[in-house]
Amino acid sequence: MFSAEAIAAVRAAAEPKSVLPEDAHAPHLEEWRGRWPGETPLILAPSSTEELSRIMAAAYEHGVAIVPQGGNTGLVGGGAAKGEVIVTTKRMRAVRDVSPEGFTMTLETGITLQEAQGIAAEQDRLFPLSIGAEGTANIGGVLSTNAGGVHVLRYGNARDLVLGLEAVLPDGRIWHGLNALRKNNTGYDLKHLFIGGEGTLGIITAAVLKLYPQPKEHVTAMLAVPSAEAAVALLSSAQERSGGQLGSFEIMGDCMVELVLDQFPDLSYPLETKAPYYVLAEFASGQKGSLREVVEGVLENAFERELVLDGTIASSDSQREQLWTIRHNASEAMKLDPSPCVKADVSVPIAAIPGFLQQADEAVLQMEPGARIIAFGHMGDGNIHYDILGPKDGDHGVWRSRMAEFEHRVHDVVVSLDGSISAEHGIGQLKRDELVTRKDPVEMELMRTIKRSLDPKGLMNPGKLLEV
Amino acid sequence: MFSAEAIAAVRAAAEPKSVLPEDAHAPHLEEWRGRWPGETPLILAPSSTEELSRIMAAAYEHGVAIVPQGGNTGLVGGGAAKGEVIVTTKRMRAVRDVSPEGFTMTLETGITLQEAQGIAAEQDRLFPLSIGAEGTANIGGVLSTNAGGVHVLRYGNARDLVLGLEAVLPDGRIWHGLNALRKNNTGYDLKHLFIGGEGTLGIITAAVLKLYPQPKEHVTAMLAVPSAEAAVALLSSAQERSGGQLGSFEIMGDCMVELVLDQFPDLSYPLETKAPYYVLAEFASGQKGSLREVVEGVLENAFERELVLDGTIASSDSQREQLWTIRHNASEAMKLDPSPCVKADVSVPIAAIPGFLQQADEAVLQMEPGARIIAFGHMGDGNIHYDILGPKDGDHGVWRSRMAEFEHRVHDVVVSLDGSISAEHGIGQLKRDELVTRKDPVEMELMRTIKRSLDPKGLMNPGKLLEV
Repeated sequence: MFSAEAIAAVRAAAEPKSVLPEDAHAPHLEEWRGRWPGETPLILAPSSTEELSRIMAAAYEHGVAIVPQGGNTGLVGGGAAKGEVIVTTKRMRAVRDVSPEGFTMTLETGITLQEAQGIAAEQDRLFPLSIGAEGTANIGGVLSTNAGGVHVLRYGNARDLVLGLEAVLPDGRIWHGLNALRKNNTGYDLKHLFIGGEGTLGIITAAVLKLYPQPKEHVTAMLAVPSAEAAVALLSSAQERSGGQLGSFEIMGDCMVELVLDQFPDLSYPLETKAPYYVLAEFASGQKGSLREVVEGVLENAFERELVLDGTIASSDSQREQLWTIRHNASEAMKLDPSPCVKADVSVPIAAIPGFLQQADEAVLQMEPGARIIAFGHMGDGNIHYDILGPKDGDHGVWRSRMAEFEHRVHDVVVSLDGSISAEHGIGQLKRDELVTRKDPVEMELMRTIKRSLDPKGLMNPGKLLEV
Repeated sequence: MFSAEAIAAVRAAAEPKSVLPEDAHAPHLEEWRGRWPGETPLILAPSSTEELSRIMAAAYEHGVAIVPQGGNTGLVGGGAAKGEVIVTTKRMRAVRDVSPEGFTMTLETGITLQEAQGIAAEQDRLFPLSIGAEGTANIGGVLSTNAGGVHVLRYGNARDLVLGLEAVLPDGRIWHGLNALRKNNTGYDLKHLFIGGEGTLGIITAAVLKLYPQPKEHVTAMLAVPSAEAAVALLSSAQERSGGQLGSFEIMGDCMVELVLDQFPDLSYPLETKAPYYVLAEFASGQKGSLREVVEGVLENAFERELVLDGTIASSDSQREQLWTIRHNASEAMKLDPSPCVKADVSVPIAAIPGFLQQADEAVLQMEPGARIIAFGHMGDGNIHYDILGPKDGDHGVWRSRMAEFEHRVHDVVVSLDGSISAEHGIGQLKRDELVTRKDPVEMELMRTIKRSLDPKGLMNPGKLLEV
């Protein structure tokens, strides 16, 4: 794909020890579910922004394309190479600054999310971003993909946790945007192009991240609700009556809960009543003492308004964990089921969630009355993981051949409600072609204009997110 | 500047009633402090996005430049015309949607900020953006300038309150980015280019804005602190111990408080002790009842650690208002002083505030020992209004001739601490040339690249923010 001379020039720009030996290539060419096997002539692991800058300048000069890799935990093939040079950020790991009084920390890109949480916790501070892959995903990766996770309702997405950014541009120039300012009106806020840009405009090398006070108390409740409409009203009421102390608000369809209990017989159902939907609500407070009373007030009101049919509040940390276990085992339960699974990661405006669930359910069941709909997710963010297993004793081959059609139909409903076909996971290769058919054409054209102007040679993560 | 034919073509694209008669031009050509008197051949006030789109397409075709105007309350000459066509957004005033359950509202650009607050309040919701000019400033204007104000500490800047945006591009295309999604990872987050873009990339026509629960209780304290370092430690402790219930944290230098008390003899000093700095801290809670106890705990700890020398907590709404009156009269007190005033609107990382104040004070007093430094502002956001009055009985003409030099010196200190020379007010014409000398050259070049690619003919608010 690229000439040996061009590759050699890029290699020569790196320190010798930054060139990965071939026997260390394998983890960078494997996607964790086995999709998108990679291919590359060269993997570089620079240890500093300056070294990365030299590498990128050489690549630009010689027209060599680059695939940036963070922890390589993405779900949409955004880090898979097809002959490009891979640059992994894993050796850029300096902690440049921690300011507990300023509620900020400045980390280089290769620090894992879990390490970042730990650096904050050492200073009695919270870095609230939390996702399943946090032990491996790194700062550059979670910012490039604008990761979401379980604390978005209260603290926002990855994007919302960044004050300043440093990045290397496609031609090797370093953008020094690493400020720790909470107010700065001096021009276009460029960091938001790189955050969520999936490495198509440059490589994030460091970030100033926001910290928060550590919560001192949690109260967790599992609630049976009569309908999705009731869940929306409950969410609104819980936010209002708790004064913004609601941290997570997860919805679980009855099929999801039943599937988990079927697959994990040791788990027991914590309520007495069955309902079409369940809510797992977690509240967090910066003070000890009064939160349980607040939550009891929320629930009392909800029972009176018949928004809740049954419920339980965890009275210990182990009970809290038990309630979360059902939710956390959703993905695992689906994996244990022999049927292949349609996985739609969608969002709609919160008030549209009941309409989405009703219309999507109708559409799916009309196409296949035996389909098992496993709907759950971060309802407080309007983000539903709408997954579909085939009929219990159906032919898996037949079901697999129909899966794209089901996903398409679910996305039709999402788009009709002004929703998003990728709430958390991004576009990468997986949804690139569909995005063009779903997004406002003017917005697609604007994205292409930005891409062409910042990466005129099209060398950054080509073929991901958008075709120029 | 533009041919009569070209202007006629732009006029013809508008509805007849959208063309302002000449006797209605004056308010659009006046800057409220009398700086930047304007000049224009045509002022258009379209009433819909579609009409604006037709106007912009005609202007693009005929190469006519446009100055967009919101409420025309800006401080940096961003809305002043020098022969361009003015487009005022004041007639685009539809409330497209209000969703109290989804905690969003969708407003067109011409609704004033105060009206927007009222629309939220009617639904028992809070739209937290609040600035001095809110009765006149409109949604398009506060978003285009990324307005700040008194609630940034808790709720963020204007930018942080937007979910989706609709805008008309320089060539008249309409970008339909008006989603109400809290998670949406489908490409570059383009709204952040238009927010804070000062009308140089297009015109914002509507926005989906975030709403919050209304706070149910406020507790306000005025505190005398021994030093700026103590104020930083107090801020950190107040955020931590109140569990994020701190809403405002304003610092006031002793000279500012004395000037206000001198100019407004009816006001009385609320404390017994004098100190170099005072803090006005306001806490807000979503529940009634326990907040005062929390604040008392914060203060008790602060007294023990000698972070606070003296303090008072307002015990009624009228006392709360009295405490704020001192802060709110700062600008008015400076206007009443006969000396011209250097006005620097700067920000630094919060932990760098003491260093900034010390270094700036030293530099200013070395240049002029009689200078009166009036430092105050939104310390919780790292935003200091660092204003300087000339010596009490000095020659105003001489002082005026030296003001630029003082501002420059203060900005030197700001930049040495990785701060911003415009925290809230933007760049406009006022700081455009200085910005080039202060900002990372790569960042300036990136901004120019974006401007050129989205506005290739350079027709949108030319000469503001950046020279291309």
